[in-house]
Amino acid sequence: MEIQYIFELFGTVVFAISGALAADERQKHDWFGIAFFAFITAIGGGTLRDLCLNSYPLVWIDDMNVIYAVLAGILLAGLFYKYFSRLRTTFMLFDTLGIALFTIVGLEKAQSLGVNNFIAVIMGMFTAVFGGVLRDVLINKTPTIFVEEIYATACIIGGICYLILDSFGVDRNINFIVSGSIIAVIRIITVKFNLSLPKFYK
Amino acid sequence: MEIQYIFELFGTVVFAISGALAADERQKHDWFGIAFFAFITAIGGGTLRDLCLNSYPLVWIDDMNVIYAVLAGILLAGLFYKYFSRLRTTFMLFDTLGIALFTIVGLEKAQSLGVNNFIAVIMGMFTAVFGGVLRDVLINKTPTIFVEEIYATACIIGGICYLILDSFGVDRNINFIVSGSIIAVIRIITVKFNLSLPKFYK
Amino acid sequence: MEIQYIFELFGTVVFAISGALAADERQKHDWFGIAFFAFITAIGGGTLRDLCLNSYPLVWIDDMNVIYAVLAGILLAGLFYKYFSRLRTTFMLFDTLGIALFTIVGLEKAQSLGVNNFIAVIMGMFTAVFGGVLRDVLINKTPTIFVEEIYATACIIGGICYLILDSFGVDRNINFIVSGSIIAVIRIITVKFNLSLPKFYK
Repeated sequence: MEIQYIFELFGTVVFAISGALAADERQKHDWFGIAFFAFITAIGGGTLRDLCLNSYPLVWIDDMNVIYAVLAGILLAGLFYKYFSRLRTTFMLFDTLGIALFTIVGLEKAQSLGVNNFIAVIMGMFTAVFGGVLRDVLINKTPTIFVEEIYATACIIGGICYLILDSFGVDRNINFIVSGSIIAVIRIITVKFNLSLPKFYK
Repeated sequence: MEIQYIFELFGTVVFAISGALAADERQKHDWFGIAFFAFITAIGGGTLRDLCLNSYPLVWIDDMNVIYAVLAGILLAGLFYKYFSRLRTTFMLFDTLGIALFTIVGLEKAQSLGVNNFIAVIMGMFTAVFGGVLRDVLINKTPTIFVEEIYATACIIGGICYLILDSFGVDRNINFIVSGSIIAVIRIITVKFNLSLPKFYK
Repeated sequence: MEIQYIFELFGTVVFAISGALAADERQKHDWFGIAFFAFITAIGGGTLRDLCLNSYPLVWIDDMNVIYAVLAGILLAGLFYKYFSRLRTTFMLFDTLGIALFTIVGLEKAQSLGVNNFIAVIMGMFTAVFGGVLRDVLINKTPTIFVEEIYATACIIGGICYLILDSFGVDRNINFIVSGSIIAVIRIITVKFNLSLPKFYK
């Protein structure tokens, strides 16, 4: 449990950074706006998961460390912003790290609440992508998951991979790292080579 | 209960189809995007209702048949897409069938959870329209219920009709069909003749 | 408790008015659309708070007076619309009154559910601003809290002020009026003199 918790807090920090950076892509926000977007991005997915699974108290309401992690992310974004020479790439990397970590965190949480494997994978994906969806909807941007890139699909593949390895008895921590890495690698490769899924309607 | 359940699954299929078709109106999505929209459209309204009424587990988390119904809807949309010569009309018909079924399904569910009649009608309407609202918000489209057409109002009228007939002791299944048909007929007539409610501000 | 309840109902009326007026800023809605926006604006924030805190039944589902307050707000907006010579100013005043009342109502509710002070302030702010956020998202408008004005920040300052006065043993009703007034005054001054927070990224 200890390591999962560290993964969760680390995921919260990187998602808060990605939220703070993403907000700026569109328009100049004041510090409250940035803090709000960082917060929404970091806790939105987990909140949706917990609302759907009736898991209370919500993580960020019960555990101030999650709040501190968000604040740390905001601080880091503010401090190092001017050193990020290529903002889009930086944002992409933090976001990728975030979805990789949160997919597995969310999947494990859902499993621990007793849902079936299909729902666990969906919940892992929700945990990973929904904070970003909320953030994008609030700034009137079409969410990344609906544009041409492979994004949520990477989370789903990573989640399925976790379940398969788990069924072979692979250690949870190792499985976490392996499956999370698969998500990150898929995401990075598809962005780098501009790959996309086939269109639904030909 | 048996027939209501079939109505609910059938409503899920038609809403998934309408979601898959609606998404395409705007932009070319990959299969994941289409699946996501179909899913959101089909389960969004019921999820909001159950969150508001504290009814757990959520229908789609507990019952894989709902998931299969969504998948069936996606498959049907993909298979028969090219045979739908007039897409807007087809979408409209599936959507109309969906709101007619889900209004009554949602109203009955809310009643069974012990709310008063006013809230039950509101919950029926939410169940019917909110999946589409979520879908439209996610693709940055103004939700149908806020444009000039009579849409949610048809659901409310049908819901009130159900309550009136119910108070006269009309059989639940017959009542379901009658009140659902009223919703569909109102919707179709108002679209065909381009009717709308009076504006609030003169 | 009595007075808090009256504050809550009064806040619901003014938020319903602000919702009905705000909707019209963008496009001509029919009476259902206006009613829906008034409803969402008035109950959206409290609903999010109660979902996050697992507080059921939701206020508006359990207490028809809240529904009546929304209907009263809609009626007042419809009746007196033509006498509001300067709509934007009128909307701003009702909205300001609404956030001032709901911040403290929401904070007190959260406190009564046993959360820590940080979360109580956040919940007060959510209660105040989230109805408007939902309304704006639904009409594809960038929510007020993300534009340049001081808005949610005023709620947070007022909430912190309430906690400080509370720690000094100030009477709850007096504290409500003082802290609520601080929110309203901050909001009015910043709008009048066009003040804003510093940008996050220089």
